[in-house]
Amino acid sequence: MADKLIIFDTTLRDGEQSPGASMTKDEKLRIARQLERLRVDVIEAGFAASSNGDFDAVQLIANSIKDSTVCSLSRANDRDISRAAEALKGANSARIHTFIATSALHMEKKLRMTPDQVFEQAKQSVRFARNLVGDVEFSPEDGYRSDVDFLCRILEAVIAEGATTINVPDTVGYAIPELYGNFIKTLRERIPNSDKAIWSVHCHNDLGMAVANSLAGVKIGGARQIECTINGLGERAGNCSLEEVVMAVKTRRDYFDLDVGIDTHHILAASRMVSQTTGFVVQPNKAVVGANAFAHASGIHQDGVLKARDTYEIMRAEDVGWSANKIVLGKLSGRNAFKQRLQELGVQLESESDVNAAFTRFKELADRKSEIFDEDILAVVGDESVSHDNEQYGFVSLSQHSETGERPVATIVFTVGGKEVKETSEGNGPVDASLKAIETHVKSGAEMVLYSVNAISGSTESQGEVTVRLQNSGRVVNGVGADPDIVVASAKAYLSALNKLQSKSDRVAAQG
Amino acid sequence: MADKLIIFDTTLRDGEQSPGASMTKDEKLRIARQLERLRVDVIEAGFAASSNGDFDAVQLIANSIKDSTVCSLSRANDRDISRAAEALKGANSARIHTFIATSALHMEKKLRMTPDQVFEQAKQSVRFARNLVGDVEFSPEDGYRSDVDFLCRILEAVIAEGATTINVPDTVGYAIPELYGNFIKTLRERIPNSDKAIWSVHCHNDLGMAVANSLAGVKIGGARQIECTINGLGERAGNCSLEEVVMAVKTRRDYFDLDVGIDTHHILAASRMVSQTTGFVVQPNKAVVGANAFAHASGIHQDGVLKARDTYEIMRAEDVGWSANKIVLGKLSGRNAFKQRLQELGVQLESESDVNAAFTRFKELADRKSEIFDEDILAVVGDESVSHDNEQYGFVSLSQHSETGERPVATIVFTVGGKEVKETSEGNGPVDASLKAIETHVKSGAEMVLYSVNAISGSTESQGEVTVRLQNSGRVVNGVGADPDIVVASAKAYLSALNKLQSKSDRVAAQG
Repeated sequence: MADKLIIFDTTLRDGEQSPGASMTKDEKLRIARQLERLRVDVIEAGFAASSNGDFDAVQLIANSIKDSTVCSLSRANDRDISRAAEALKGANSARIHTFIATSALHMEKKLRMTPDQVFEQAKQSVRFARNLVGDVEFSPEDGYRSDVDFLCRILEAVIAEGATTINVPDTVGYAIPELYGNFIKTLRERIPNSDKAIWSVHCHNDLGMAVANSLAGVKIGGARQIECTINGLGERAGNCSLEEVVMAVKTRRDYFDLDVGIDTHHILAASRMVSQTTGFVVQPNKAVVGANAFAHASGIHQDGVLKARDTYEIMRAEDVGWSANKIVLGKLSGRNAFKQRLQELGVQLESESDVNAAFTRFKELADRKSEIFDEDILAVVGDESVSHDNEQYGFVSLSQHSETGERPVATIVFTVGGKEVKETSEGNGPVDASLKAIETHVKSGAEMVLYSVNAISGSTESQGEVTVRLQNSGRVVNGVGADPDIVVASAKAYLSALNKLQSKSDRVAAQG
Repeated sequence: MADKLIIFDTTLRDGEQSPGASMTKDEKLRIARQLERLRVDVIEAGFAASSNGDFDAVQLIANSIKDSTVCSLSRANDRDISRAAEALKGANSARIHTFIATSALHMEKKLRMTPDQVFEQAKQSVRFARNLVGDVEFSPEDGYRSDVDFLCRILEAVIAEGATTINVPDTVGYAIPELYGNFIKTLRERIPNSDKAIWSVHCHNDLGMAVANSLAGVKIGGARQIECTINGLGERAGNCSLEEVVMAVKTRRDYFDLDVGIDTHHILAASRMVSQTTGFVVQPNKAVVGANAFAHASGIHQDGVLKARDTYEIMRAEDVGWSANKIVLGKLSGRNAFKQRLQELGVQLESESDVNAAFTRFKELADRKSEIFDEDILAVVGDESVSHDNEQYGFVSLSQHSETGERPVATIVFTVGGKEVKETSEGNGPVDASLKAIETHVKSGAEMVLYSVNAISGSTESQGEVTVRLQNSGRVVNGVGADPDIVVASAKAYLSALNKLQSKSDRVAAQG
C-alpha cells in the first residue's frame, strides 16, 4: 500500500498573515468548513495567543470542525502554548504547532538569543505542549538556512520530548528542489530518532519553486506532510499552493506513489471563496484554478483546442470543480433548485434562516439579471455569510451623476450605528465621489491601498464585485461588496472595510 | 569563467497565443523594445506564416530591434520557413525556430503522420532553414512525452542538418524537475553530435513547476537556453516566468554558477506593460512582480516586517525595478522631469511628438489628480503608445446617472469612422448602460468574457484602468481604457476592443 501524504492547510494562519488578507471570525469558519469538505487532514486555524480575535477564531473552528485535525500556531513559550491548548479544547482532534527560529541570522537579529537558549526553550516548550495534547508539531523557523549540526541537535531533542511532527520551513523561499530534498534527507538520516516523527515541508514561493521544493522534500527527503494554502496565499510571494501540489501528486502518481485524501472536486469553490474573502485575485494563467487553466473551461471555444483537448490537457477540469455548463439558474428557479445548487457547489449554510436570506437575495438578483451563474450564487452566499449584526455602518441608497466636462457628484444614504446619514460629495469619478461622501461623515483617515473590480461572470450585465483595501494605524483590512451597479458595489465594499477597521486588535506577527 | 545562460523570451509568440492575450503590432513592438532594454538574448516575435498580421509584427520587430536576436516560429515546411525568413530579413541577428510534434499521441491525433514521415520532414525543414539563416532552432513538440529512442534519432538528424539550438518542450506541463533534468541529460549523453547544438528548455506551468523544471533542465540536464515569458503569460497555466527564473539563477548563483545577461532593473516595468497590454492581471502573491512580493514595497508598512527586512527578503526590491518612493510628479512638474522619469522607468517613446502627446495627457491628468505615481505615468504612456490612426471608433463624451430604485441610464457620444454618433441606453448599472448605448449603434454581437478594473495606484482618486475582453466568431480581443471616471474608462476600453475586433485575421494555432 502506498504511504499517505498528509495535507496541512495554513490558509487561515500563514495565508491570513499576508498584509491585506485578514479575515473575520465568520469568514474563517466558512473557509474552515470548505477545507473540511476538501478533506484536508490538518487545518491550521490561527495563532491563538496572538490576539483575542485569533483566539476566538481558533476556538470557533475547533468547536465546529469534526473531520479534520484543528491546529493552532504558538511561539515556544508556556503562555502561548496554554492559550493554544485552551482554544483547541473543543476539537475532535487537536494539534499544537510550536516554533522558534534556528538560523544564526534570526536567532541573533530577531530573538537576540544564543543557540543554547533556543535549544532549551524548544525542548521545554515541546515537553509542556505534550502534557496538554498528544499531537505536537515543532518548526525550526528559517530551518533551511540553519546550521545543519545545530538543527540535528535541536530536532533530536524535541523528538525525544515527544514532538510527533517535525516541519522544516524554507521561511524565505530560498531553496532549490534538489537541495531542499537532500536537506530533509540528511536530517532524517543523521537524527537517530527521526523515525519517531512524521516529517513535514513548508515552502515559500519567492523564487517560484514552492511546489517543486515541497515535492522534492517528499520524494527525495521522505517527508509525509506538506504545508500549503489555497491559491498559494501568504506573505510576499506566498506559500506552496494546495491545488497545485495536490494535483501534481495525483497526476504524477506514477512517480510519487502516495495517497492523498483530498476531494479535489471542491478545489475551485475553495479557491473562489478565498479569493473573494481576501480580495486577492487569482491570475488567469494560474495553474489549476486560473480562468485560463483549462482552455475549454474558460468560456472561450477555439476549434483547435477543443479538437485536441486530450492532446493538451493532463488533468480533467471537472476533477477540480470546473463545470461545463455554467448557466445554472434563472428567475423562475425555486428554493429547492437553489438549495441543491448550493450543495453541488459545496456550500453549506449554517441554518435554514441563512438559506432563506440567501434565497431572498438570489431572487432580487434574478429580477435584475436574466442568467444566474455559479459565480453569482457564490457571491450572493458570500455576501450573506458575512454577519451583519452589530455592524457600525450599513448601506441604504445612492444617487450619482457624471458628465464629461463636469465634476462627478454622488449622494449616499447610509446608517451609522443604526441612524441614517445623508452626505454629498464631488470626486474625480463617481466612485471617488461616493467614497468621499462617506468619508465626509466618517472621517476614518484610512488610506486606500487597493481598489479592484471584477464582473462576477464576465459581462457588465452581471454583478460587479468590488474589493477595497484600507490601511489605518498599521492595520490592513479588505472590504468586499457586490452589486450590478459598480458605484453601489464600491460604496458597499468601502462600508464593509470600515466595519472591519472598527474591530481593533493587536496581533503578534509570526512567520513560518 | 561561468557559462552563459541564454534567455529566450516568447511573450510575443507563446504568451500572445493565450486566449485573450492577443496584441496589436504596435503593442508588440512596444513590448519588444522593453525586452531589448531587459537585454533578453532572443525575442521570439511571432509566427510569421500564421497570418499577415503576425508577419507584419515579426517584420516590424526585426527591423526595429538591434541588440537582441529576433526569432520567428515556423512549422516544419518550406512555405512557413520562407515566410519566416522573409519577415526576418531586416534583423541584425535572425533565428528561425521550426517545430514538429514527436509524441505518439500528437503524431497520430494531430499530424496524422507516421514517425518516419515526421523524421523526414524535420530533417528537410532544418536543411531548408539553414540555407536561409545561420541560426536555426528545432523543437520536437510534446518532446517530453515522446519516445526517447525516436527523439534521439530525430534530434541527431536535425543537428547533422545544422540545427544550432535544440529545444525540448514540456508542451503539456507534465514534467517533474528530477525527471525532466535527467531526460535532457539522457538525450545529450545518447546523441553522438549533441555537443554541436545548444540545448534549450521550454516548460509549461500546469502543475506549478515550470520554473523548477526549466532550472533542472539547466542544472541536471546541461541546457544553456531557457524559453520563458513575462509574468509567465501563456496558454492554460502559462509558460515558465522570466522574472522568476532569472531571479532564481541570480539569487542562487552559488548553485547554478551561470551568467545571465538580463538587466533586472527593467523587470517590473516589463511586467506592468505586459499585464496592461493583455489585461492579464498579476496576482498580489506572484513572485518577484506581485504587489506583495516585497513586503516593504507594497505600500504597507508593518513595523515587524520593516525591522526584520533582511531576515525575510532574499532579493532587493530595487534590483527588479520597485522604487521606494512612489510619488514622483505633480502638476508643477515640467517636461524635462517627465521625460527623465520616463527614462528611469525604462520607457522609450518613438519620437518627440509622442513625448509631447504623452506630456499633454500627463498635464491633463495632473490637473485632476494631485499625486502622480509611476503607475499613472506608465498608464498615460500606455494609452499614448496605442496608435489611434485609422481607428473605426473613438470616445468623445459621456453622461450617466444612477439612483437606487431607478434603472441606470447613460448617454454616450463617440465617433464611427470619424463621424459623431450619440446614443442613450438603460442598463443594470452605469457601465452596463454605457456599453449598451455603444452596442445600440455598433451591433457587434460580441460576447463579453471578461471585465475588470484596477485603480492604477491604489485609491479611487487615481485613474481606473479597465480591461474588457470580447469574443466574436472565435476571436478574442482585449481593450484597455484608463480614466479617473470608471464609467468613462469602461467605455474607452469597450471602444478599443471593438477597434481590435475590426482588424480581422485568421491565424494558425501553434503550441510549444
